[in-house]
Amino acid sequence: MEENNKSVGIVKTQFFQIEDNIELESGTLFGPIQVAYETYGQLNETKDNAILLLHALTGDAHAAGYHSEEDKKPGWWDDMVGPGKAFDTDKYFVIASNMLGGCSGTTGPCSINPQTGKPYGLSFPVITISDTVKVQRKLIEHLGVKKLIVAGGSMGGMQALEWAIEQNDLVNACIIIASTGRLTAQGIAFNAVGRNAILSDPYFNNGDYYDKELQPERGLAIARMVGHITYLCEDAMHKKFGRRFQDKDKPNFDFHIDFEVESYLEHQGRTFVDRFDANSYLYITKAVDYFDAAYKYGSLENAFKRTNAKFLIMSFTSDWLFPTAQSKELVQALTKEGKDVSFCEIESPCGHDAFLLEFETQTKIIKSFLAKERGLYEQSL
Amino acid sequence: MEENNKSVGIVKTQFFQIEDNIELESGTLFGPIQVAYETYGQLNETKDNAILLLHALTGDAHAAGYHSEEDKKPGWWDDMVGPGKAFDTDKYFVIASNMLGGCSGTTGPCSINPQTGKPYGLSFPVITISDTVKVQRKLIEHLGVKKLIVAGGSMGGMQALEWAIEQNDLVNACIIIASTGRLTAQGIAFNAVGRNAILSDPYFNNGDYYDKELQPERGLAIARMVGHITYLCEDAMHKKFGRRFQDKDKPNFDFHIDFEVESYLEHQGRTFVDRFDANSYLYITKAVDYFDAAYKYGSLENAFKRTNAKFLIMSFTSDWLFPTAQSKELVQALTKEGKDVSFCEIESPCGHDAFLLEFETQTKIIKSFLAKERGLYEQSL
Repeated sequence: MEENNKSVGIVKTQFFQIEDNIELESGTLFGPIQVAYETYGQLNETKDNAILLLHALTGDAHAAGYHSEEDKKPGWWDDMVGPGKAFDTDKYFVIASNMLGGCSGTTGPCSINPQTGKPYGLSFPVITISDTVKVQRKLIEHLGVKKLIVAGGSMGGMQALEWAIEQNDLVNACIIIASTGRLTAQGIAFNAVGRNAILSDPYFNNGDYYDKELQPERGLAIARMVGHITYLCEDAMHKKFGRRFQDKDKPNFDFHIDFEVESYLEHQGRTFVDRFDANSYLYITKAVDYFDAAYKYGSLENAFKRTNAKFLIMSFTSDWLFPTAQSKELVQALTKEGKDVSFCEIESPCGHDAFLLEFETQTKIIKSFLAKERGLYEQSL
Repeated sequence: MEENNKSVGIVKTQFFQIEDNIELESGTLFGPIQVAYETYGQLNETKDNAILLLHALTGDAHAAGYHSEEDKKPGWWDDMVGPGKAFDTDKYFVIASNMLGGCSGTTGPCSINPQTGKPYGLSFPVITISDTVKVQRKLIEHLGVKKLIVAGGSMGGMQALEWAIEQNDLVNACIIIASTGRLTAQGIAFNAVGRNAILSDPYFNNGDYYDKELQPERGLAIARMVGHITYLCEDAMHKKFGRRFQDKDKPNFDFHIDFEVESYLEHQGRTFVDRFDANSYLYITKAVDYFDAAYKYGSLENAFKRTNAKFLIMSFTSDWLFPTAQSKELVQALTKEGKDVSFCEIESPCGHDAFLLEFETQTKIIKSFLAKERGLYEQSL
């Protein structure tokens, strides 16, 4: 744990159990579900100062702080969550939970199916963004929250959007960062390649690998490598690695790692398999592919008719996975419907990953958005 | 064979044998080498009307015409090669050869090593763009060509560049389309993912799979899928496939193919393995990674000091693999050195693949470039 007086400090992941079945979008009834979550700050008496943070593809409930004094790395959005930070834990009760289908404490394909005593594997039902939001709602109700703000980057933005449209009775405000109303064909294609790599791994064994000595690590690593390229931007990648050789000054003339960028990708792939489950990668990318905010209502405009939340939408100049044009589609549809929407495109060389890195600019914008939202709220008291 | 009075008609792949060893860039002496090639049109008496076409990553010697009356598809650049076409076979002697390390007739990892009587596999030496150009030079000399024009798209453009710089005594003009002086880190990263997919395939068997029942088809298919995404542009891809489901109107809720774009990618991968060798994919992508026109001379400018060829450089607006900026780097370096260079960025929605598709605009520009080059030549007679 680094010295940081703005940290939320030591936190503990908590668990909430949903005993009843939930009806999933596919029609399947599924339960029980355990939800891993963390909270930072205090819920006020009127129970309306909550912010729900929604994680991206490979995130988890550990958004901020440290799990122990020995922890070297804090939660994934630690720069944004804490006293005085963008999501100010002196003012707000901040909640983060691992998504349904994940592998970090919430029920997913690696969880034990109580009916068989074995991990679900591919018998786990295919889930959607809507399903995971339904599960989050159960958690929010369990915590006694009456009104909340939702916020997320990338797939987290999709969940925030789903919350604003489908769980509109609870949502005061919605912050969507580096996200989209739906994946384009190219986005689906990149996910499909990743899934193909996993499904083709000789140790995948139709998803039944948890008790095996060898696991589908190469397939998952390759999926991560493809994904990782799409999270960065070409320019910044070239500035960082260029064409430098790894630990030498000339080619190997073989098929081992030659260039620094290859070594970096290999490292990204290899470390990823230690913290993520191949089946979860399949389920979550599928949920991302399926998400389409406009689908059920025929258009984004129609979907947005359902919400009165205030929106803040942010994109990054160098994000080519969910480029600014996709954020603007959301902004335009909200504007057409006369909704309250603020939009900002942030100059950044960090590509899609900017939502995890560019915390200074994001903090200013989010603070100002929340102050306005809070001002209106305080006036109404 | 389609009715096309501009076709070069029925052509036959020919073979040329290099018996002596060639010294490769890695220092390895390698031989013998068989070169598969095709020619269209006639070499003139002064033997200086030749155009050498250089193929891209997965191309071959069959650039134009049909191999038989029954052939459904002509060569890969048939739209550009023939009587009256961009590469006009009424005027020019057009040559195309399969590159060293390929799998379409020129010696490569799938060829029989005469010393063992078995396919080379990974005992084939790692080759470079410079090596394949050296082999092409042997072919050109064998054909008696005294002066030539070189032309290629993508990796073919790299070979053209190498010809102009390293085999400058023979090159009158150089046409480089949708190409680059060197891959960026992102380009290397995409190739590395493809190679990883092949190397991780359970049937790869360290490259020794030719006599096996099962081959590294999934790995090669995945490599092709990744590559294919980079050859298209997001916009056109989304216009073509959107988020349409394949043969149905709702999700499967399983891990089979859901979206049209997934089906398309799967098809691209599956058909590719019928015509390409996984080992060749490793060798050729490595050659592409290694290519750096500036490396040996410290800068592009210094490299271009060596050539007096006239250059035509073309790029496409929607090509994000080798974007216009990379063509402009070549143009600027040539201009700094006072070389004769024409440049055109062509408006196209076809992404990197545009060099294989946008034949009308390319034809106009190439015809005009060649007419100018020919005019100067004819004046000098």
